[in-house]
Amino acid sequence: MQFLLEVVDILTNYVRKTFDRSTKVLDFHHPHQLLEGMEGFNLELCDQPESLEQILVDCRDTLKYGVRTGHPRFFNQLSSGLDIIGLAGEWLTSTANTNMFTYEIAPVFVLMEQLTLKKMREIIGWPNGEGDGIFSPGGAISNMYSVMVARYKHYPEVKIKGMAAAPRLVLFTSEHSHYSIKKASAVLGFVLSDSCACYLVKWFCCVSAVQGFMPVFVNATAGSTVYGAFDPINEIADICEKYNIWLHVDVPNSVTWNPHKMMGVPLQCSAILVREKGLLQGCNSMCAGYLFQPDKQYDVTYDTGDKAIQCGRHVDIFKFWLMWKSKGTIGFEKHIDRCLELSEYLYHKIKNREGYEMVFQGEPQHTNVCFWYIPPSLRLLPDGEEKRQRLHKVAPKIKAMMMECGTTMVGYQPQGDKVNFFRMVVSNPAVTRSDIDFLIDEIERLGQDL
Amino acid sequence: MQFLLEVVDILTNYVRKTFDRSTKVLDFHHPHQLLEGMEGFNLELCDQPESLEQILVDCRDTLKYGVRTGHPRFFNQLSSGLDIIGLAGEWLTSTANTNMFTYEIAPVFVLMEQLTLKKMREIIGWPNGEGDGIFSPGGAISNMYSVMVARYKHYPEVKIKGMAAAPRLVLFTSEHSHYSIKKASAVLGFVLSDSCACYLVKWFCCVSAVQGFMPVFVNATAGSTVYGAFDPINEIADICEKYNIWLHVDVPNSVTWNPHKMMGVPLQCSAILVREKGLLQGCNSMCAGYLFQPDKQYDVTYDTGDKAIQCGRHVDIFKFWLMWKSKGTIGFEKHIDRCLELSEYLYHKIKNREGYEMVFQGEPQHTNVCFWYIPPSLRLLPDGEEKRQRLHKVAPKIKAMMMECGTTMVGYQPQGDKVNFFRMVVSNPAVTRSDIDFLIDEIERLGQDL
Repeated sequence: MQFLLEVVDILTNYVRKTFDRSTKVLDFHHPHQLLEGMEGFNLELCDQPESLEQILVDCRDTLKYGVRTGHPRFFNQLSSGLDIIGLAGEWLTSTANTNMFTYEIAPVFVLMEQLTLKKMREIIGWPNGEGDGIFSPGGAISNMYSVMVARYKHYPEVKIKGMAAAPRLVLFTSEHSHYSIKKASAVLGFVLSDSCACYLVKWFCCVSAVQGFMPVFVNATAGSTVYGAFDPINEIADICEKYNIWLHVDVPNSVTWNPHKMMGVPLQCSAILVREKGLLQGCNSMCAGYLFQPDKQYDVTYDTGDKAIQCGRHVDIFKFWLMWKSKGTIGFEKHIDRCLELSEYLYHKIKNREGYEMVFQGEPQHTNVCFWYIPPSLRLLPDGEEKRQRLHKVAPKIKAMMMECGTTMVGYQPQGDKVNFFRMVVSNPAVTRSDIDFLIDEIERLGQDL
Repeated sequence: MQFLLEVVDILTNYVRKTFDRSTKVLDFHHPHQLLEGMEGFNLELCDQPESLEQILVDCRDTLKYGVRTGHPRFFNQLSSGLDIIGLAGEWLTSTANTNMFTYEIAPVFVLMEQLTLKKMREIIGWPNGEGDGIFSPGGAISNMYSVMVARYKHYPEVKIKGMAAAPRLVLFTSEHSHYSIKKASAVLGFVLSDSCACYLVKWFCCVSAVQGFMPVFVNATAGSTVYGAFDPINEIADICEKYNIWLHVDVPNSVTWNPHKMMGVPLQCSAILVREKGLLQGCNSMCAGYLFQPDKQYDVTYDTGDKAIQCGRHVDIFKFWLMWKSKGTIGFEKHIDRCLELSEYLYHKIKNREGYEMVFQGEPQHTNVCFWYIPPSLRLLPDGEEKRQRLHKVAPKIKAMMMECGTTMVGYQPQGDKVNFFRMVVSNPAVTRSDIDFLIDEIERLGQDL
């Protein structure tokens, strides 16, 4: 127990320093440097045990060479920040070290999950919060659940007879949707159509019977990964309803909701919500006798394991529940409003600033702000291929220098015919306007001579 | 930070009491009792925030009404025990709060995973530890990976063209295999054959071409869930090699290895190991531009995200790595030997004891010991349907009383034509022979008047 308290001492120091802006965001090293053993930090596993003193050193080194995702100047991912209540929730969860598959060994957590899922469905607006849902290991798996459940709804016989029992199933999603939708399509044996435009869905429905393709699933994105853009959900919903196609995200069928993003819950915390009851269970049940005995002394409808594609399932609910208790619904609302305000602040700061170009005109739809920084040497170049090629290298170079300096982190990527641009997102409640200012100063400091 | 230390105080008290045999394993309540609010423990979520004092009360209540899976008399699941080094590893992991998808934001953890996977492949016996692998959220997902990779190896075009590009794919697994194999078969659109007997595989290979079925995947079980039994792996391997069928578990193709079971690593910790390099990446890559930029300044082959079906992936490696450092390989060996010794102790204690009947004759193949307890009132009954029906109710009744008393927990289930029997497993290093004795005394105390 003394050892555990010494680790707590290391961890609380780490947390304190993470919130201190004079601490670096990271102390960057290349893989080969870390593998060679930085200052005695030996990653190799051995036959013989190490002393507890050495284990404490290992813990310190692990944190030293890592990335402080809770630092107010870490903007690299939408999941950022370090909520102390959420952290306490995770520590309690690991101490309880149990499994979500049955009420038997996780009574409190199973009920918390059930109540929280209902609350989430109420917020989505489904009548009386009815429907179903489950927490899953991340948004990609939540998305995969939605495709599975849609397939089961249309072709339940696939569960027993395999995909040969169905025609060629088609999944529609826009090219800007998260790549996990494409992964789910591949895993589940669908044909992907990455144009979600409504006319295509219509067209497909008309000709599908002839060609042996069957449209089954449409993914609509509410806040795309890079742009934070929203698909025209109402329009898509009308078409899906008309042609009896499953719509994921919003009315009428299923939603993926990741509290580990904008809500600042520690990783990982993701839920799939399904409007129709019984489908998750029908789709995934295998009635394992050693876990889900029907002759238990309690109401076994509380056992969740047969809804999941997992067997063991990590307790992701408690930290979220505890944060909700601590903040209240209004606390989450305030937090998200604040992140959106900070994004607006950034947008207004740079939209007319010299050396910046926005990827889109107009206010951002979400917390994402996408922009190019154009160093002075490129500003006078005529538009054309040379300028494009040089601009394409600017964001990676600035990012690399940022990481070497360890001062801040922000993401970049190309998209379609657009060369590399920065994607700024805010989800950490510790971020202030001064951190946004710092990011812009840092981009200009590192990029002015490129 | 004061709040966090108060939570630590609650947690360290909890851990101390968990190892104290005078503490109950659980304080059982029915779902409706907990939902009604036990002694003011209100699970409902509200709009308004709660005070930090109330949050601490919530934490205490959550632990109070939960199950102590680390208690030396908790035998209900193979994942049990509470390793303090592993726990410290989890606390550090939650504090670091990062994501395994890129080296960029998890440099140390990504390298730890790579080195640990290599070490695991060496232990399996693959030459030079070569091959591939990834940690996944539990054994069910690891098993699903193996089926996915096998499908990709045989029919890579499925990734783009859907399952219509392949014939009817067949998966073989024995009826005693873990139910997650059946789930994977259903998810991935296979036809399941739950007889893994070698002759069936042979037969299938001969007739498959005619009937349009294609055998692709054989799962061999090394330690089945209930019996701890081993499939004849070498024999199956020969057939799979001859007919070019993917064999999961052992040579030559893939293995699921769950350190959160016999190795006592906190939940969850599971790896899928694949002998052929490049398949995981080929199968699952979608090249998401916003995460896996090819123009990063470091060696991007260390980014793991494109191997996974997840996007965000929890850091499950650190607790395992830290325990391995602390115990050494020899420490894990000793721990597993000790669990097997305790199982043997139980087996020898009850095999000729009055009122017990073993489900199988002969020494157990693994830590599982499966047995019936026959109360005195049933011992003189002639074998037959009445005795079977009464015996079927014994284990559920004893288990229900155990849970009401909170003294110990052990699993039971029926299997095939066998009525409910107890399945005892040992994985917690805190267990001693006296705890095994206690379990038997408790079964007899609770069952003698049934």
